[in-house]
Amino acid sequence: MSFEPRSPDFEATVRATFAGQAFMQLIGADISRLVPGELDLICARRPDLTQQHGYFHAGVTSAIADSAAGLAALTLFDSGSGVLTTEYKINLVAPGDGDQLIARGWVIRPGRTLTVCKSDVFANNDSCETLIATGLFTMMQLAATSH
Amino acid sequence: MSFEPRSPDFEATVRATFAGQAFMQLIGADISRLVPGELDLICARRPDLTQQHGYFHAGVTSAIADSAAGLAALTLFDSGSGVLTTEYKINLVAPGDGDQLIARGWVIRPGRTLTVCKSDVFANNDSCETLIATGLFTMMQLAATSH
Amino acid sequence: MSFEPRSPDFEATVRATFAGQAFMQLIGADISRLVPGELDLICARRPDLTQQHGYFHAGVTSAIADSAAGLAALTLFDSGSGVLTTEYKINLVAPGDGDQLIARGWVIRPGRTLTVCKSDVFANNDSCETLIATGLFTMMQLAATSH
Amino acid sequence: MSFEPRSPDFEATVRATFAGQAFMQLIGADISRLVPGELDLICARRPDLTQQHGYFHAGVTSAIADSAAGLAALTLFDSGSGVLTTEYKINLVAPGDGDQLIARGWVIRPGRTLTVCKSDVFANNDSCETLIATGLFTMMQLAATSH
Repeated sequence: MSFEPRSPDFEATVRATFAGQAFMQLIGADISRLVPGELDLICARRPDLTQQHGYFHAGVTSAIADSAAGLAALTLFDSGSGVLTTEYKINLVAPGDGDQLIARGWVIRPGRTLTVCKSDVFANNDSCETLIATGLFTMMQLAATSH
Repeated sequence: MSFEPRSPDFEATVRATFAGQAFMQLIGADISRLVPGELDLICARRPDLTQQHGYFHAGVTSAIADSAAGLAALTLFDSGSGVLTTEYKINLVAPGDGDQLIARGWVIRPGRTLTVCKSDVFANNDSCETLIATGLFTMMQLAATSH
Repeated sequence: MSFEPRSPDFEATVRATFAGQAFMQLIGADISRLVPGELDLICARRPDLTQQHGYFHAGVTSAIADSAAGLAALTLFDSGSGVLTTEYKINLVAPGDGDQLIARGWVIRPGRTLTVCKSDVFANNDSCETLIATGLFTMMQLAATSH
Repeated sequence: MSFEPRSPDFEATVRATFAGQAFMQLIGADISRLVPGELDLICARRPDLTQQHGYFHAGVTSAIADSAAGLAALTLFDSGSGVLTTEYKINLVAPGDGDQLIARGWVIRPGRTLTVCKSDVFANNDSCETLIATGLFTMMQLAATSH
């Protein structure tokens, strides 16, 4: 699907929003791809991002899945508006075992009020990419005045 | 509902599992209550846990909701077994605006393979507690040999 | 929690909306309780509502859970508005084994645009009531002109 | 993705399971496609399948989405085993406005105990197909002796 952004500044808005998410910096996430309706985040393995078996903690997996989906939605919003996750569901289908996670978020249904997105998270190990999580998200556009 | 733990060491197991989750230490979460089938986690506000509007990042809210639910499930598992989140859904119903978050996880349906849990997250501000998120989780018991 | 309905006609609106859902008649569902923010639906066992093991089909369980939640939301909406389920998640925690199902829907977070609800479904067998499903729903208010 | 069924009789098992779901007959659903890991169900519009605005009731949409996903999972299960939906989440992204619904279910992660599936539902109107719902499902394999 191909989307036409409504805001000419969508890329700057998305990057500024991401830069304002201190928590994304805490976990070391970064934008690796940004096009209208799609956004990827990467996050390198660190010992302090793990759970009791040494894999990426599901909290990290979910956080980048959510942020990738929300920022993908934001690429299509009106100029000056913000984005809010109203709810999501995620299935964790394999251990987060890898040197790096990549979360690929994309819009499946843009809307005036609600935008539905998906996000898949992959773990990279050497040259191999494994699907570790898949999620479904409902994002809300916040009017310029309300955030 | 009142639950009878199957493992005499359930409290030690839960505390050791939590201590092994480096990511929980990174965000400063702590166990504030632990009884069979129920577990609360608290997390104090820090600038590096926020999103672009200064509230707790949904990634933090979700991570403690998930960990509280998983550890609540673990209190009821067989001795020596571990816990895995297979999936969850969370509704973020209000901004994470407060000095501290508290995630209250509890088991609603224990099972041989799958245990269904809920988790509510509240933001504390002065003496006021506001519900900011509510989630529904499916946890899996991992046999002693498989983790 | 206690709610103040915004529409003086909320009960008539909810009953008319339910009466307009031909599918609820097909499965024989009925409103058994209606107060602001809460609504129960009952559905008696019939052979044509079952799945391959003779239990209530999950489609029936989910449908009454969803309708109970949506109608519970509608009790709190503005006069003349309608209700739409935007999304939900349901855990089916036990077989739908009973003479009757009862779905209890209630509002946990009313909102201008989105209202978050829960719904629990119980199977009645003789005098025993068993929780068979629990769900989390996001409902949207439709303005009078848009439906 | 291409899947190798473990049961030589997978097609007969799936068709027999579907035939045993009386509720699927009540709503007039039918299998229109069946290959390993994928299954489509169609359901023609009838006045008694609608909600208050004349569209397909979300209960019908969800029921065929769930059954398509569950039967897709069943194509990959061991001979003699059954399938159970443990939980699902669905986003209803557009009104169920059409002459026919088609639910396309497929497996994204097969497993020994749990199999994760997706299902998209489309409404057909003349030659046009519109996505009206998308869901994420966790299916469980039931051993031959337990169902």
